[in-house]
Amino acid sequence: MTREPKQDRSRVTRSHLLEVTVECLAELGWSATTMSVVAQRAGVSRGAMQHHFPTREDLITAALEVMFDARMDQARKESTDLPVGAGRTEAVISRLVEYYTGTLFKAALQVWTAAASDPDLRARVLPLEERFGRIAHRMAVESLGVDDSDPVTHRLVQGTLDLARGLGLADVLTDDSRRRTEVVKQWAAQLDSTLVRVPVATP
Amino acid sequence: MTREPKQDRSRVTRSHLLEVTVECLAELGWSATTMSVVAQRAGVSRGAMQHHFPTREDLITAALEVMFDARMDQARKESTDLPVGAGRTEAVISRLVEYYTGTLFKAALQVWTAAASDPDLRARVLPLEERFGRIAHRMAVESLGVDDSDPVTHRLVQGTLDLARGLGLADVLTDDSRRRTEVVKQWAAQLDSTLVRVPVATP
Repeated sequence: MTREPKQDRSRVTRSHLLEVTVECLAELGWSATTMSVVAQRAGVSRGAMQHHFPTREDLITAALEVMFDARMDQARKESTDLPVGAGRTEAVISRLVEYYTGTLFKAALQVWTAAASDPDLRARVLPLEERFGRIAHRMAVESLGVDDSDPVTHRLVQGTLDLARGLGLADVLTDDSRRRTEVVKQWAAQLDSTLVRVPVATP
Repeated sequence: MTREPKQDRSRVTRSHLLEVTVECLAELGWSATTMSVVAQRAGVSRGAMQHHFPTREDLITAALEVMFDARMDQARKESTDLPVGAGRTEAVISRLVEYYTGTLFKAALQVWTAAASDPDLRARVLPLEERFGRIAHRMAVESLGVDDSDPVTHRLVQGTLDLARGLGLADVLTDDSRRRTEVVKQWAAQLDSTLVRVPVATP
């Protein structure tokens, strides 16, 4: 049996706390996601928790940031499965919309909504929002294989991310998946007729 | 000077309370919009307020419902100013997106987000969501002058409302109006090339 070095244990604890925070936000909402609730759910002492995250805001913003980066890493790996040619646009948008209906989006929605009336939280969340938006846009452009320097293409990709956000919001209270599938299919058909592609190397 | 009958005064109080509730939700957020805060802002006694709205949930759901109906009435009146022919689609979508970036949407977002983790509130909000979605879809179809029985048109109108919702969410923390205008313009051009119109009577 190998001994787990102290540093690794600490990293595991940290990462577990961040995961539990995102779950709590999505499930219990903003107000109920307190330091003690997260510590208890994660099975970590308050002291150990405060060693990693001195304040609730530190914990919550770190949770969104780290989980977002992990989600994007995963998306990058999964993007090799995307079909090439016909059906790619729909597959890319479906996957994109999946992120916006998942736990991370539901957690972020709780934080964004709380930040609307909390100037301190807003100041911490704005750089995250800017960063998430930029990375999501770049990922969409890469997965679609389109030329973002074309202004029409650029705006349609932005609109697609706005659509995904709107579909995410529509899914907060009810399972909206059937309707969503139809909307995505139609939206993809629209994009296919207009987006400017970049030449794709033969796979 | 005409004397205001008691019934009219009561109606004015009620309507004022609903307006103040929506303002409070959008500005102060879900948790801070308590019965006492609303009563104080509205200059109404707690007793008078509880005569109209026994519980906070009664107040908040009535506020969303009544303000939504008022907004839709106004939209119906304003729809006579919409240009006929070229530019109509963009004008309709711009106006639609304006509703989703206004105070009422920001108030509703607070309530929807709170309802995500509150089953009782969720049960009260779901019929409202269903009703708002149905009416907004009908209004969009009428304003665009399109044939909703065409399945492609039906889905594109749904997608347009999802886009509007996403643009509304993007506007919660920052003024997103410049980017939004470009996205709306591009999406309107997309729709114009695809939507099936119903014949319009000469104005």
